[in-house]
Amino acid sequence: MSGRRDFDLPALRAGVLAGEKRAVARAITLVENRDELAYELVREIYPHTGGAMVAGFTGPPGVGKSSLLSSLVTLLRSDQKTVGMVSVDPSSPLSHGAVLGDRIRLSDHFLDAGVFIRSMSTRGQLGGISEATLQALLVLDASGKDVLLLETVGVGQSEVDVATIADTVVLVLMPGSGDSVQALKAGVMEIPDVIVINKADHPAARTMRSEIRSILSLDRDRPWKPPIVETEAIRGEGVDQLWAAVLEHRAFLERDGGLEQRRRRSIEHEVVAVAVSQARRRLSQAVAGDAEVRRLLDRVHARELDPLTATREIAERVLKLGG
Amino acid sequence: MSGRRDFDLPALRAGVLAGEKRAVARAITLVENRDELAYELVREIYPHTGGAMVAGFTGPPGVGKSSLLSSLVTLLRSDQKTVGMVSVDPSSPLSHGAVLGDRIRLSDHFLDAGVFIRSMSTRGQLGGISEATLQALLVLDASGKDVLLLETVGVGQSEVDVATIADTVVLVLMPGSGDSVQALKAGVMEIPDVIVINKADHPAARTMRSEIRSILSLDRDRPWKPPIVETEAIRGEGVDQLWAAVLEHRAFLERDGGLEQRRRRSIEHEVVAVAVSQARRRLSQAVAGDAEVRRLLDRVHARELDPLTATREIAERVLKLGG
Repeated sequence: MSGRRDFDLPALRAGVLAGEKRAVARAITLVENRDELAYELVREIYPHTGGAMVAGFTGPPGVGKSSLLSSLVTLLRSDQKTVGMVSVDPSSPLSHGAVLGDRIRLSDHFLDAGVFIRSMSTRGQLGGISEATLQALLVLDASGKDVLLLETVGVGQSEVDVATIADTVVLVLMPGSGDSVQALKAGVMEIPDVIVINKADHPAARTMRSEIRSILSLDRDRPWKPPIVETEAIRGEGVDQLWAAVLEHRAFLERDGGLEQRRRRSIEHEVVAVAVSQARRRLSQAVAGDAEVRRLLDRVHARELDPLTATREIAERVLKLGG
Repeated sequence: MSGRRDFDLPALRAGVLAGEKRAVARAITLVENRDELAYELVREIYPHTGGAMVAGFTGPPGVGKSSLLSSLVTLLRSDQKTVGMVSVDPSSPLSHGAVLGDRIRLSDHFLDAGVFIRSMSTRGQLGGISEATLQALLVLDASGKDVLLLETVGVGQSEVDVATIADTVVLVLMPGSGDSVQALKAGVMEIPDVIVINKADHPAARTMRSEIRSILSLDRDRPWKPPIVETEAIRGEGVDQLWAAVLEHRAFLERDGGLEQRRRRSIEHEVVAVAVSQARRRLSQAVAGDAEVRRLLDRVHARELDPLTATREIAERVLKLGG
């Protein structure tokens, strides 16, 4: 890329802190490219972060998250809030078209100076996204955006995990999201802070609402009762109620010191997630390229060495994890 | 537990290799308890493994996997095959009842000497299950079972990941599994080897089948075309077609050396998964209890130190992952 020398660290730092769109864009590109300059930048701007409100939106593909977020951005802009948004995009040859289609709805906001939207590819590595997501959100936070929106696409707990960097986690479903409802019911997916049923015009929306209500009612000890909001994202219906629910959750957190606690937990979670993804990268590289590791794997394949002993040796070699 | 001294290593080894149910049960309990004796046992019996055929069944909760597997065990037994089965059970206060209900269907087989069934709890740690699952399957393999069935409960890629230890991965869905279909369509969930639509009596089953067909048809380069099998697990309908599809996939793998390749890939995958889960455990322990790590986290919370620098220091301290 030609832009590598557009910005040195002081210029990037000044640009990001001044909220300049071009500097923010460059910074997030550096983040995506795992450039050491991004690391240095985030280290320098970190004291200027923490001012933004962070809401995470997660849910299966196809439920209308992007439309919902586009409507939400419109609402926030009408309220004079500046918005930074990061979409974690599961890139795959098959998904390309589908996800691109969703993104088009967000393009309404691309010319608005008060909005910054970036889609980041997971490049097939769910774990590796933690670090880039965290850095991108910190850049947007330091750039002075009032509200940060994080969108993760997927089903299951892994995606909810990515969203836990947020102060408020919103799970977006639609009628037909039977698997997610079952996952909530069986406890294999954590209960989020706010649940949205999008495409609420659908005849099955009411059944779904009562099913989710009965799941939530099982958990009487939860101090925060997650509200269920019905939306019609394409027409912008229910988006104000959704935002009201997010603000209510935020007020709940602030009331009893929960926000501090949550951010502490979120930091712990992020540190573990980022370190784990670094460990995974190291291990994958070693498995692919380290001759001694290849030799151990060959011996496992030949049934001369059991996989756990091999794992211990490989972990010791790559991660210094002694027995 | 009183049983700790029932078996020493030689007795356990002999018992497992002779296929004695009590020795196998003890071995898997040791595996679950992360006992060093389990590690030693697996190391000794490993040369006796590799003979069993391993099929992994994954899918969201509530689709009827346990009924399907119960019917499948009946079919395999009528064919004189011995069966070992491990169910990875997402334990949570909420799920307890639901999952227990499913297990009851499998209890028909508990008295059959040719069948060994064990449910293993994830104890809230999806990552940590890799090691125990791998060990339990190796114990059952060495005990001489012809067919090993692995059941993982959940939605999304993480569960498919657990199943990749198997030679053949079967994804079980039902009409209403809209989220999983969307996840396949968007490419956020890998295409499995066989797809089952259970509860095929449902009027929406046909629509679902054609939807999945059209998703699979996008991927023309795939040498193996995953068959879609419709079942009615409670009545045992379609279970023979399901098993025929698994055998067909197995024959496909054996035809062009794919089985060797797949097992190599599976070993690599397992080694990384087990080492990553060990790294995660170390990191979580350090985050919870290591005073120096706590101090770093406090500084991050106070915005004195950015999270990535803290992560690098913590990773270096806990995993010796230098920059």
